[in-house]
Amino acid sequence: MSSIEQIGEIRVAIDTVWVILSAVLVFVMNAGFGMLESGLCRSKNTVNIFSKNIVIFAIAGLTFWLVGFGLMFSDGSFFIGSTGWMLTGEDNSPAVAGQYSGIFSSLGWTAVPLYAKFLFQMVFVAASAHIVSGAVSERIKYFSFIAFSVVLVAIIYPITGHWIWGGGWLDSMGFVDFAGSTVVHSVGGWAALTGTIVLGPRMNKFTRDGRINPIPGHNQTMAALGMFLLWLGWFGFNAGSAMAAKPETIALVAVNTTLAAAAGVLSATIVSEILIGKPDLSMMVNGALAGLVAITAGCSAVNIGGAVITGLVAGILVVYFIIFLDRRRIDDPVGAIPVHLINGIWGTAAVGLLDREAGLFYGGGISLFITQLIGIAAVGVFVGGGTYVLWRLIGLVMGLRVSQEEEYVGLDISEHGMEAYPDASGPRGLYGKPGKF
Amino acid sequence: MSSIEQIGEIRVAIDTVWVILSAVLVFVMNAGFGMLESGLCRSKNTVNIFSKNIVIFAIAGLTFWLVGFGLMFSDGSFFIGSTGWMLTGEDNSPAVAGQYSGIFSSLGWTAVPLYAKFLFQMVFVAASAHIVSGAVSERIKYFSFIAFSVVLVAIIYPITGHWIWGGGWLDSMGFVDFAGSTVVHSVGGWAALTGTIVLGPRMNKFTRDGRINPIPGHNQTMAALGMFLLWLGWFGFNAGSAMAAKPETIALVAVNTTLAAAAGVLSATIVSEILIGKPDLSMMVNGALAGLVAITAGCSAVNIGGAVITGLVAGILVVYFIIFLDRRRIDDPVGAIPVHLINGIWGTAAVGLLDREAGLFYGGGISLFITQLIGIAAVGVFVGGGTYVLWRLIGLVMGLRVSQEEEYVGLDISEHGMEAYPDASGPRGLYGKPGKF
Amino acid sequence: MSSIEQIGEIRVAIDTVWVILSAVLVFVMNAGFGMLESGLCRSKNTVNIFSKNIVIFAIAGLTFWLVGFGLMFSDGSFFIGSTGWMLTGEDNSPAVAGQYSGIFSSLGWTAVPLYAKFLFQMVFVAASAHIVSGAVSERIKYFSFIAFSVVLVAIIYPITGHWIWGGGWLDSMGFVDFAGSTVVHSVGGWAALTGTIVLGPRMNKFTRDGRINPIPGHNQTMAALGMFLLWLGWFGFNAGSAMAAKPETIALVAVNTTLAAAAGVLSATIVSEILIGKPDLSMMVNGALAGLVAITAGCSAVNIGGAVITGLVAGILVVYFIIFLDRRRIDDPVGAIPVHLINGIWGTAAVGLLDREAGLFYGGGISLFITQLIGIAAVGVFVGGGTYVLWRLIGLVMGLRVSQEEEYVGLDISEHGMEAYPDASGPRGLYGKPGKF
Repeated sequence: MSSIEQIGEIRVAIDTVWVILSAVLVFVMNAGFGMLESGLCRSKNTVNIFSKNIVIFAIAGLTFWLVGFGLMFSDGSFFIGSTGWMLTGEDNSPAVAGQYSGIFSSLGWTAVPLYAKFLFQMVFVAASAHIVSGAVSERIKYFSFIAFSVVLVAIIYPITGHWIWGGGWLDSMGFVDFAGSTVVHSVGGWAALTGTIVLGPRMNKFTRDGRINPIPGHNQTMAALGMFLLWLGWFGFNAGSAMAAKPETIALVAVNTTLAAAAGVLSATIVSEILIGKPDLSMMVNGALAGLVAITAGCSAVNIGGAVITGLVAGILVVYFIIFLDRRRIDDPVGAIPVHLINGIWGTAAVGLLDREAGLFYGGGISLFITQLIGIAAVGVFVGGGTYVLWRLIGLVMGLRVSQEEEYVGLDISEHGMEAYPDASGPRGLYGKPGKF
Repeated sequence: MSSIEQIGEIRVAIDTVWVILSAVLVFVMNAGFGMLESGLCRSKNTVNIFSKNIVIFAIAGLTFWLVGFGLMFSDGSFFIGSTGWMLTGEDNSPAVAGQYSGIFSSLGWTAVPLYAKFLFQMVFVAASAHIVSGAVSERIKYFSFIAFSVVLVAIIYPITGHWIWGGGWLDSMGFVDFAGSTVVHSVGGWAALTGTIVLGPRMNKFTRDGRINPIPGHNQTMAALGMFLLWLGWFGFNAGSAMAAKPETIALVAVNTTLAAAAGVLSATIVSEILIGKPDLSMMVNGALAGLVAITAGCSAVNIGGAVITGLVAGILVVYFIIFLDRRRIDDPVGAIPVHLINGIWGTAAVGLLDREAGLFYGGGISLFITQLIGIAAVGVFVGGGTYVLWRLIGLVMGLRVSQEEEYVGLDISEHGMEAYPDASGPRGLYGKPGKF
Repeated sequence: MSSIEQIGEIRVAIDTVWVILSAVLVFVMNAGFGMLESGLCRSKNTVNIFSKNIVIFAIAGLTFWLVGFGLMFSDGSFFIGSTGWMLTGEDNSPAVAGQYSGIFSSLGWTAVPLYAKFLFQMVFVAASAHIVSGAVSERIKYFSFIAFSVVLVAIIYPITGHWIWGGGWLDSMGFVDFAGSTVVHSVGGWAALTGTIVLGPRMNKFTRDGRINPIPGHNQTMAALGMFLLWLGWFGFNAGSAMAAKPETIALVAVNTTLAAAAGVLSATIVSEILIGKPDLSMMVNGALAGLVAITAGCSAVNIGGAVITGLVAGILVVYFIIFLDRRRIDDPVGAIPVHLINGIWGTAAVGLLDREAGLFYGGGISLFITQLIGIAAVGVFVGGGTYVLWRLIGLVMGLRVSQEEEYVGLDISEHGMEAYPDASGPRGLYGKPGKF
């Protein structure tokens, strides 16, 4: 083998190592979502939350193999891919750019084996359903949620994904979403919003006389650990989205990602000190996540200053919208909508402002910004509308919400017949008041 | 330096990065085993479980350096290695295949430094003892368990390991166990089985009139997090076992590993819904682990379809055998035997059926399948017999089981003089009833 | 592009992948510190601990970008760097050794992009403040601690860092601190020591009649998990400090790091069995960390035997000094001083004894050992003195310690207005006795 061929082989090896290890980091986010969501909910729903969490990832992985990857990345129309089920079909990966031939030409630019491409994309999918899980938690029927998730991860997510990353119409327009502020976070966020609206708030969250009852999460340690696991995964999520070990790109993306999150922590802490009069831990946690979601679209397009600005704004937005949703009597137990929807939108729009070359603030004109807004709106209409119909359909067929009795007792007992912390059940003594003994 | 030499150096660098980072992932499994085991046991034994867990890894690492690595991988007989203590002796690693000369020729095929080979193999060893730890937990004397573990990790594990990975007789026969369904999981599983039989069940687990009392674990969050940490580590465990950054292999292995686990989750959830009438979280957790254990042997030999089938069967087996062991009055608090022994066997046998080339279902004849069965049986006889004798010996010398009083109080107080959650100790008020206040 | 140029590019790629993934591992240590510290403290201070923990990392990251990286690594005097704010200034990274030109010549030896250098160094900084956080926990005012941390991470840490890693006077003398036993751990340790002396012990820790009241941490699971997360991060901390994928070096460092920790576990367990009469879990946890801190300076300079000796001594030192500090009535809730200060000193000194070439025990003469002692002393005087003054200043301006009432109630309620585990708050019934209900 010539040294040129050997060099080509080694480049594939290092790119593949990078992509696989990035995928492994993204995988950690499953644990992060589970810890965060259950930490911010009551102990009586912990088993239920992890039962959703684990099955979501299993279903997302298997359906993405069966149909999702084909729908999203295979050649087809501007709207949807039409082949590549179970990863079958022509594909000469790993082939260097320009020499790719096969049915997944939207991923032809990265010279790693097809299975590495699949693995990296597959670990993203479950995130969208985890986002929804948080917003509808503590009151949704287990199998109804699973049914919703199947459609979300197998069909809805791949369709908008095809638009943006799979060679679809937004891709062609030059819409920029490097790692998925819109593809992953807004999609999950819209489904979360329609879900919580259709379901309505948890019992006693809002009283008739207009008061808002805070329902604190049962374990702030879990929430904080969950946040760290998500942040950890985000290094893979964002820097891995280069899908090649390009030194300058992945170093910039990793720095931008971390400093945007740091900025989100800082602004959320300060705003919460000002608005609530104390440095609120859950606001710090959500500030970090808000910064991470917001920088996801532009992490390779902005410089460090732009990343810090993106994160600072995200931290402010998340605190404001957590309060705002409460006032609008929209019950989102974990803050999924302010974190993922609002900052998915903000981050996507911010690229139009802060892109080093094409951003409005950098003298790049308004064209990119408008493209970003079109993409945001299109995904909002499609996913918002589609999931609203889907929630209603599932409600008709299976029912969506557990009974008041079941909600009071907690989904762990009513849906799964077990408790998360049975050792702790003695002293409350009062069946029927689990979680608030 | 010529460009050929430079290319050789870079290949060593990328392979070493891959092997070290894979080892780091496998290291995470220590935390995973600790969280899973203690989450599935009662709070009164948590300190004890982590005290076993941490010391096991320390002992496994140090003894593997002193003797284990030499016993397992050095040149010697078909039965055992006979040199290489403390990593001394001739070795020209990293040397490309064909050019290796030294005493560890069984690892001559991978061109990474000797210390990288050692590190990767070293992090595997503790797993076998962690598996045992779970099955005998909540009733075994601390130092008796440590004594057992020393012999297991320093002698027993390296011997069967030598047979299969170290150039021993099963290696020569063509026995296939890519990442250790048998080498690691069955070995631990057989020791777990003999241990729990010798020890007998926990107090009040089985009553005289034939009833089975469920003893729920104290913290399902810990169990779920532990499972995720194990799954995370398994990417390194399986894909790292290529011990080189071969793009096609590691991508296939990573995908197979994850989809087998996903399939295990799915089938365990469905079977538990059918058999138990609810989607049981601990069955989902064990379903994932069952899929992971089962795919470990064949992860590089089967295609994705084969991996999914392996995982689906694993998820069914694990639920069935958890119920079966209870009925046979064998008390395995965490399900270590159904997960690691049963699925270690299943996964090893499955290679004989599903190997893309030599598998029975792929027209490869029955020869590989028979070889797999021979290996399974040989390891079972040797490890099952050896550990049974070892448990008895330790029982004679040191005693194996704590007193009924100590078991009732919990091993945290009786063996370590401390509680895992002292803040929670007030309200029960009743010393002598910790964990079931 | 010629094959020589391509080979150069690929080497940068693999080095960058290694450095970034090592930085990601170090990032995990933030979670590790948070879990360890809060696990070893009472539940009533958990929210406070994570609120410090998260904000520390945010501030460390942002200030290191603004000024710290410039102070530490830019060309300047022997005492301090004087340029490079916000990573601006001439820099031709990635440039191979000898061809570097720019203002960060102290990092010119590693051929990765500037942002990769920054990322790796940035994740180290917060560790020094996390160490302090543990020692002063359960009684310090939130914003006073934050103010202290800003100065520590933005100014003090970069100055001594410049001396040792940034081309300063200790660097020139040949002082050896591969990954920061002194740069990170002793610096944090000295600040922890002065902090706890200035603050005084927690209420009721020491009684007037000379008794020492143990105040057990609220969650040993968290402590154990925190230790594992720290150990995990240490693979990146130490092996990543090669800042290049040098196979022999990173393999040796990874093995040394793990076996030193294993040795620390073993000796701490045995010493605690002898001195306290039981195998104490918190001693095992601190033994592992002691071994890790101690090997950090010499991990690339000593052979495996030297690493094991370093760890064995570290495990003994940590148990002895935990007891010693209690007797001297210095209250360090988590053992930060024995782990990070004592073993930071031990590990740095040990290089002078155990270095394979220049170590006293290897016939290298006393010169290196003396250099190591000079560095230890200089950092001690500067950081010890500087932080003592800083604590006093902040005490004058903002006050340092919460009121007795607030300490009794817990900082979660008094500083943050929330509880970590509100579900558990019912049964104690007694406001005013949180954490000891």
